Order: sequence, then structure tokens, then C-alpha cells
Amino acid sequence: MRRLGDGVEAALHCALVLCWLEPGKVMPGKSLAEMHGLSESYLLKHMRALTEAGLVEALPGPRGGYRLARQPGEITLLDIVEAIDGKEPAFTCKEIRQRGPGKSKDPCAYRTDCFIKRRMLAAEELWRQSLRAQTLADLAQDGDALIDAESKKTIAAFVRDAQR
Amino acid sequence: MRRLGDGVEAALHCALVLCWLEPGKVMPGKSLAEMHGLSESYLLKHMRALTEAGLVEALPGPRGGYRLARQPGEITLLDIVEAIDGKEPAFTCKEIRQRGPGKSKDPCAYRTDCFIKRRMLAAEELWRQSLRAQTLADLAQDGDALIDAESKKTIAAFVRDAQR
Repeated sequence: MRRLGDGVEAALHCALVLCWLEPGKVMPGKSLAEMHGLSESYLLKHMRALTEAGLVEALPGPRGGYRLARQPGEITLLDIVEAIDGKEPAFTCKEIRQRGPGKSKDPCAYRTDCFIKRRMLAAEELWRQSLRAQTLADLAQDGDALIDAESKKTIAAFVRDAQR
Repeated sequence: MRRLGDGVEAALHCALVLCWLEPGKVMPGKSLAEMHGLSESYLLKHMRALTEAGLVEALPGPRGGYRLARQPGEITLLDIVEAIDGKEPAFTCKEIRQRGPGKSKDPCAYRTDCFIKRRMLAAEELWRQSLRAQTLADLAQDGDALIDAESKKTIAAFVRDAQR
């Protein structure tokens, strides 16, 4: 499989952090960047993509920042992946079957997808379904279960200080 | 998902055609290219990748050409995809979790994969499993069932004339 953009990792981490804000609060882009050791300009591009996809709200101004536009359980991992990397299928079909001497003269032959394309798209649909069945709430639960106590305290303190 | 290289489509079509050769015969690269309406130089790159992956044998010389290195039922769609597009995971993890103030001081914290990475890799493993469960024999069966009779005759005649 071709590699997803590295923005996917950054977007998932940022979206997870936004799950931890108190209701009504936002986190400035600068703090999100600092928290992940990333440059603000790098993150800006990806946060804009999440905002344009309607997953995140961006509040402007000096007290502005980002917050989730929906509940964590209503934002799937696929939502985030597609916001950053697009919804295009992975398999590129240029209709090779319609070229060369084997090309059909039957006008109905190309009404359905090529059987090669069908198998390739069905396979990637399994990937998509799996990401559609998981949400930010699952990531937040992972964080609860798997981040060690000391790091959790540091993160909580950072979020508390940074949120507005 | 990022797009797979368009060579994947070409490689799958070519591998399917090689299923139709008589035992012991090869098909010249020129004929494979003609059959798919593609340039020989474009195809050469992808046929080389299939050969290097051990899926196809390339016989040199004026009577040379390509044939499958294994039975169609022993070449999976994943074999072909990975020969063309590599085996790298799609999800790019740059260990963002180890950056910034939330970074763990626990020496054991990073012995296992990040929980975000685990979910992303598990999802793409479903795609991989699906392609691993399908072979060129399945494509050949699709062809039998779905290519119309006249096209089948044209293709069979082309293969018969081109094989060496």
C-alpha cells in the first residue's frame, strides 16, 4: 500500500488531545504544536484540513484555538484519515481493459467495473470499514488504559494551562 | 488511502495474460505491451519488478519473453501489489508520542507500538489479508466468467500468435 501522509499521525494525535479539553474550551495551535514537538506551520495545514472537513472548529482571535466539532464518539478514524489524505480509492484504474486488441465490441461490456478493479476496491473497503468502526472515543480509552500515570499528569497539566 | 502506483493495474493485467500461455511458452514484452495498449518501456519497469519479486521469469534473447514463475493459484494479488508498490505499511508513524512535554519518562513506555499506530496498522492488515487470500487463479476465473465470447476469442488468438 502506498504510504499515507505523515499528517495523518499528527492529526490523530491532535484530535486526541482535543478530546481532553474541558467543555467549551479551545486549544491554541501554538500549544498543540508545542505539545507534539511539531512546528506550528506544519500543524496549521493539517488543522485546516480537519476544520474544512467539519471535524474541528477553529475559533479566531487572541483567545482562539481549536476544539472538536462533534463528540469524540462521533468522529471516526476514517473521518480524520480522509480529511488529511483524501477520499480517493487507493487502486488506480486507467481502464487498461479498454485498450489493445482484446477490447470488447459489446456496448454493455464496460457498464460494470473491471473484475480486477472490483477485487482491488473490495479489499481496500475492508480497511475503510475498519477505520469507520473506530472513533476518537476509542483512542481516548486507549490513552486512559495505556499512558502511564506520570505522563497522564503532565499531559493533564499542560492541557489545563493551555486551554482557553 | 494514498493511491497505489498505476503500475499495479498494468502488472495485474499482464500477470493475468501470462496465465493463458500454453505450458512452457513465454510472451515477449512487446506483445504484452501491444495487448494492453501500453508502451513497452512503461511495461518493462513493471515486468522487471515482477521478475525481481520472483513472480515472473524473464527469458532473454530473440525467442525470449515472460512467463509466470509459479502456478496462478500460488501468486496472490498481494504478491503483485507489493512487487510493484513495496511492502511498507501505509501508515507513517514518526513517533510523535515521544515528543513534547507529554513524553514518558518510563523506560518501558515505548517498548510496544503507539496505540494509534496499532489501530492504523491493524486496519491496513485487513486489506493485506484480503489481497493475500486472492490469487491469479481467481482473476483467470473472473475472466472466464465475465469476458464476452468474442473478446475471449480475440484474446486467445492474440496469445496463440504471440507466445513463443
